[in-house]
Amino acid sequence: MSKVNVAVLGATGSVGQRFIQLLENHPYFQVTHLCASENSAGKTYGTVMKKRWKISSDIPAYARDIIVTTPEPSKTPGAKLAFSGLDASIAGEVETAYANAGVHIISNSKNHRMVENVPLLSAEVNAAHLSVLPAQETSGKIITNSNCTIMGVTISLKPLFDLFGIEAVMLFSMQAVSGAGYPGVPSMDILGNVVPFIGGEEEKAEIEPLKCLGKVENGRIINADFPISAHCNRVPVFDGHTVCVSVKLKKKATEQEIRTAWSSFKGEPQELGLPLAPSSPIVYREEEDRPQPRLDLDTGKSMSTVIGRLRPDPLFDWKYVVLSHNTIRGAAGAALLNAELMYKKNLL
Amino acid sequence: MSKVNVAVLGATGSVGQRFIQLLENHPYFQVTHLCASENSAGKTYGTVMKKRWKISSDIPAYARDIIVTTPEPSKTPGAKLAFSGLDASIAGEVETAYANAGVHIISNSKNHRMVENVPLLSAEVNAAHLSVLPAQETSGKIITNSNCTIMGVTISLKPLFDLFGIEAVMLFSMQAVSGAGYPGVPSMDILGNVVPFIGGEEEKAEIEPLKCLGKVENGRIINADFPISAHCNRVPVFDGHTVCVSVKLKKKATEQEIRTAWSSFKGEPQELGLPLAPSSPIVYREEEDRPQPRLDLDTGKSMSTVIGRLRPDPLFDWKYVVLSHNTIRGAAGAALLNAELMYKKNLL
Amino acid sequence: MSKVNVAVLGATGSVGQRFIQLLENHPYFQVTHLCASENSAGKTYGTVMKKRWKISSDIPAYARDIIVTTPEPSKTPGAKLAFSGLDASIAGEVETAYANAGVHIISNSKNHRMVENVPLLSAEVNAAHLSVLPAQETSGKIITNSNCTIMGVTISLKPLFDLFGIEAVMLFSMQAVSGAGYPGVPSMDILGNVVPFIGGEEEKAEIEPLKCLGKVENGRIINADFPISAHCNRVPVFDGHTVCVSVKLKKKATEQEIRTAWSSFKGEPQELGLPLAPSSPIVYREEEDRPQPRLDLDTGKSMSTVIGRLRPDPLFDWKYVVLSHNTIRGAAGAALLNAELMYKKNLL
Amino acid sequence: MSKVNVAVLGATGSVGQRFIQLLENHPYFQVTHLCASENSAGKTYGTVMKKRWKISSDIPAYARDIIVTTPEPSKTPGAKLAFSGLDASIAGEVETAYANAGVHIISNSKNHRMVENVPLLSAEVNAAHLSVLPAQETSGKIITNSNCTIMGVTISLKPLFDLFGIEAVMLFSMQAVSGAGYPGVPSMDILGNVVPFIGGEEEKAEIEPLKCLGKVENGRIINADFPISAHCNRVPVFDGHTVCVSVKLKKKATEQEIRTAWSSFKGEPQELGLPLAPSSPIVYREEEDRPQPRLDLDTGKSMSTVIGRLRPDPLFDWKYVVLSHNTIRGAAGAALLNAELMYKKNLL
Repeated sequence: MSKVNVAVLGATGSVGQRFIQLLENHPYFQVTHLCASENSAGKTYGTVMKKRWKISSDIPAYARDIIVTTPEPSKTPGAKLAFSGLDASIAGEVETAYANAGVHIISNSKNHRMVENVPLLSAEVNAAHLSVLPAQETSGKIITNSNCTIMGVTISLKPLFDLFGIEAVMLFSMQAVSGAGYPGVPSMDILGNVVPFIGGEEEKAEIEPLKCLGKVENGRIINADFPISAHCNRVPVFDGHTVCVSVKLKKKATEQEIRTAWSSFKGEPQELGLPLAPSSPIVYREEEDRPQPRLDLDTGKSMSTVIGRLRPDPLFDWKYVVLSHNTIRGAAGAALLNAELMYKKNLL
Repeated sequence: MSKVNVAVLGATGSVGQRFIQLLENHPYFQVTHLCASENSAGKTYGTVMKKRWKISSDIPAYARDIIVTTPEPSKTPGAKLAFSGLDASIAGEVETAYANAGVHIISNSKNHRMVENVPLLSAEVNAAHLSVLPAQETSGKIITNSNCTIMGVTISLKPLFDLFGIEAVMLFSMQAVSGAGYPGVPSMDILGNVVPFIGGEEEKAEIEPLKCLGKVENGRIINADFPISAHCNRVPVFDGHTVCVSVKLKKKATEQEIRTAWSSFKGEPQELGLPLAPSSPIVYREEEDRPQPRLDLDTGKSMSTVIGRLRPDPLFDWKYVVLSHNTIRGAAGAALLNAELMYKKNLL
Repeated sequence: MSKVNVAVLGATGSVGQRFIQLLENHPYFQVTHLCASENSAGKTYGTVMKKRWKISSDIPAYARDIIVTTPEPSKTPGAKLAFSGLDASIAGEVETAYANAGVHIISNSKNHRMVENVPLLSAEVNAAHLSVLPAQETSGKIITNSNCTIMGVTISLKPLFDLFGIEAVMLFSMQAVSGAGYPGVPSMDILGNVVPFIGGEEEKAEIEPLKCLGKVENGRIINADFPISAHCNRVPVFDGHTVCVSVKLKKKATEQEIRTAWSSFKGEPQELGLPLAPSSPIVYREEEDRPQPRLDLDTGKSMSTVIGRLRPDPLFDWKYVVLSHNTIRGAAGAALLNAELMYKKNLL
Repeated sequence: MSKVNVAVLGATGSVGQRFIQLLENHPYFQVTHLCASENSAGKTYGTVMKKRWKISSDIPAYARDIIVTTPEPSKTPGAKLAFSGLDASIAGEVETAYANAGVHIISNSKNHRMVENVPLLSAEVNAAHLSVLPAQETSGKIITNSNCTIMGVTISLKPLFDLFGIEAVMLFSMQAVSGAGYPGVPSMDILGNVVPFIGGEEEKAEIEPLKCLGKVENGRIINADFPISAHCNRVPVFDGHTVCVSVKLKKKATEQEIRTAWSSFKGEPQELGLPLAPSSPIVYREEEDRPQPRLDLDTGKSMSTVIGRLRPDPLFDWKYVVLSHNTIRGAAGAALLNAELMYKKNLL
């Protein structure tokens, strides 16, 4: 199979930068177009990003000389697939335009996540949801991934949901500043401080896992049905969302059963050997004070979900801590893994 | 009434420093002795603390020239009361020795908190518990205050408990580094990081509120009876513990009823006009992103508990955020308020 | 003397907020107008600032209900004096308009600092420069204060300059994020990081002290004449600029002579007993690791300059560390002290 | 050539951990012994480090099962070379014991740095100093590397020293907390703060570069001779020391000449293709606000020195900013590069 030409929409943003980093020398995809706002159009990506590249490795050489265009299908001829890290204010319209033009959209934006027949895809969790794609009316299909905070939580819940059933989940997040993009959170707001509020975040955290954990019946996704309560907070951490979870199961499970459920969890990305798939989607840390962003964020090239502190909950059944890399596993990496899955399943 | 001579035990530690700051020019108490370990004994407090004073105002003049002694009743003649900020490793023994010697102990240490007939006192919450003191066998009485994390939470729960009853509480803390004392948390562990574990903290958070909210029957404290689940975390904040709370009530309450319960809450410290009593024990912030340590920690001279974000909880009834100053309201200030209460009630 | 009616220009910014805080219950001045951009005009200050007030005490009651106007002389009738915390992009024009309208301007903006006959006033350092005001052609006079970084440094240099003469100064700053205003520095740029560049800062640091330390001859300010080299850096500190200084003197001085020069330094604000004047403009810390923002920023109600670590310099003569509060002593507080000086000298 | 068996002394400390990480799968060296204090001896390294490993990748598998011993030659049979990350309190004695026992010591400790005939080796700077080794009386030779702060500065000075001569250097450091080891700097001291003092650091910074830049005459190292003044500061950064430098040259140089001197700088490590040698020992960043720890610390696998902001100095000739990774280029990596150099030159 030859490489698929792809465009990156929203290429100058935080998620766009991660797309560009992760797509360097990718075996399936060749970046042919980088799209951003009118201000950046017409200049090389290297010029545009001189002061805006915020990842601690240089801009990949392949991207430096690409001339940035605006995100319109007519400006990105030959691209069969577009990765979207667009701001929610424009993502809806642009992504629809691409789908209409026959270009598949792998989107990290929230706009289409809850739309019927649009998979909210976490490749290890609900690859089966790709079967609803034919029901989308456009020739280009839209696939989304979930919010950065809830991604790791949903992965941690998946094996528990399948094996024991879930009655209720309460979660509490401590989210990194990179989750708000750039310039994002002003330093005066977060240095030595915590902000117990992130606009729209709790709403997403309380609904998105239900779609991810849903099943396909008669060609439609039927959401899972249990209540979730979320408390979302911003903390002075650069990368890495840490989430405390309390879970009530339908069927009682022992500590060992849960640990085994997590350690044996694999999905299609692992079976198909996708390039970005971590060998272990879930890594459990035995230490009493882990996971921590500082120490555990690189696990599985930042694509593993790291769990620790499984212990009985006096109210529900169990409580534990989940960490995942918000701009990789929770955004660009998850989206790219979704695209790899589609490529390997000949859906592109 | 003349001033009562007092000793500060554990005077060099974080809580001890706060005692010394708050006792400057106090209308009821006169610090006559400062006690610390063998290493410090025999030197002036000013000399001992030259590099260890960590509060952003100078050592009060009155304390500079006091010669530090070890914490033994024979070394602190004339002190009728001792404030204890001792490390838990020695607090049990030392405090008992003082009580046996007829000196009252106002302790911030955990050792005696759950001992029968020892009030776990939060002056606005359970002043009535002082009635069990005669049951203590020693002539010196021991009064404790609760853990710094749970203090504000218990205050927030008290009016709800009285008016609506509580069925269950789940809480998630984001705790400041000063809560671990000095040197305490190594910077390599917490800079740009969160640590989802604090030894012994969740256990305390799950039991202490029940004693505080208990009632006195037949001269004994009967604990309240509802389950609490706690997730405790350390974050890179200097002072101020922020706690997210989900609460299930026995009797349904509207948002307005809860807000009114909080705003009208007063205790004996307010009625008696105690020097350290904040005019409002609970202050509610209307803004959607408050309370925050940076902005709200000084409220009521750091003696108020600041609450915000009251909203319905999809699982329980309500959720909200509580902030309190961990070394003032949650430790030295709470203890001093307890002492003021006893003074005013002629219990010293 | 009755109170002078004043307007605050740029009232919503960081410096504007400090003006409003410091002017609460001021004995000389009564705030009658608060001015900001078109977006804020017509609303009460309390409404405008609901999410923008960044000082850890509430908006003063007096300011809450003032209706914000745009900064034009016709919109602020009755104001005899205006405090300007305007952004440099508009400060030049607006301040000139006010001066033309006969309103005195006490400005923290950089625009007029180096203009001839405009004092760059640090009240303890160069009160004598007020004598050039008559040379300004407008009936309203413009008085500026220096850049926040260089303010404390200039105060530290003043007694050395007078007593020993200065041949050269090299300085290196570690500046707080509040110096960049709000939203200012993105958290992704500064969390756990240092940025060794602040636009325009080194240029100001290398010239402004020379004007402050200048003398008045024939009604004109003649700048001091020695070279300064500045390295300016941003660090993850909220408030407080720390500056390392190496100084070469014209006349050799002993450590004791320098220490005495600093401890005995007083200016007109102290002699006149101005409300905001710290009793000691310079406070020297004996500890080997001071001054530090955490511990020393409140000194003299944040109006003192705190110095430490005076030691021989292998290259120049002496080196030391200076700390001052950048939004109080280095901005709004300095400006207000300048206004108090003018009030007391009957120049308003 | 077969691999050389090596021991790591001080294996549990910050520098020791880096040695163990960098020695994984090393082509020249095989770690056979890990040495630490009595407390750790007799246990596997994996057990000892369970809560003390502070690098964000797991303990290398090869090290986990090695039984820790105390640092004595008799306990490390077969080791021909020892890497020392020992604390200065014991490094002197232990290193001498090893040298007497015929084991070469590659030390990061300060104890032997200024001893005659002990090279203070920075492999790209002064490989020629290895020629003095025969003058050491012991059969095991001691080779040291310089202080973490001054390492990058010395590399930046080397090509200037060779081409233009140096008359004077003034430097200001902003040092990461990892430079103080673990537990090292208490978080209460550095969170949101800067500490303008690091014990003994300025003394080292003012002398060590002179030895590194010295020349060998008659089998002895003759130090370079120019004055250095250093201001050393601790900032809330995890890894990476940033240093501002002002330099006065003997022979005037243009900006282009200096840039060329840096970009063309290579040393023996590059010529010999040593495993840890960065292809460019010096990397210059064109952006006006670089280098920064966040963005530039990984350059050359953290073995490059990153420079930026070269500009004229009003006092000296030029000023610029230097960044290097303090625990890799400034400590364990530098030491390992020194060992690689000796291996390749058949000095082991």
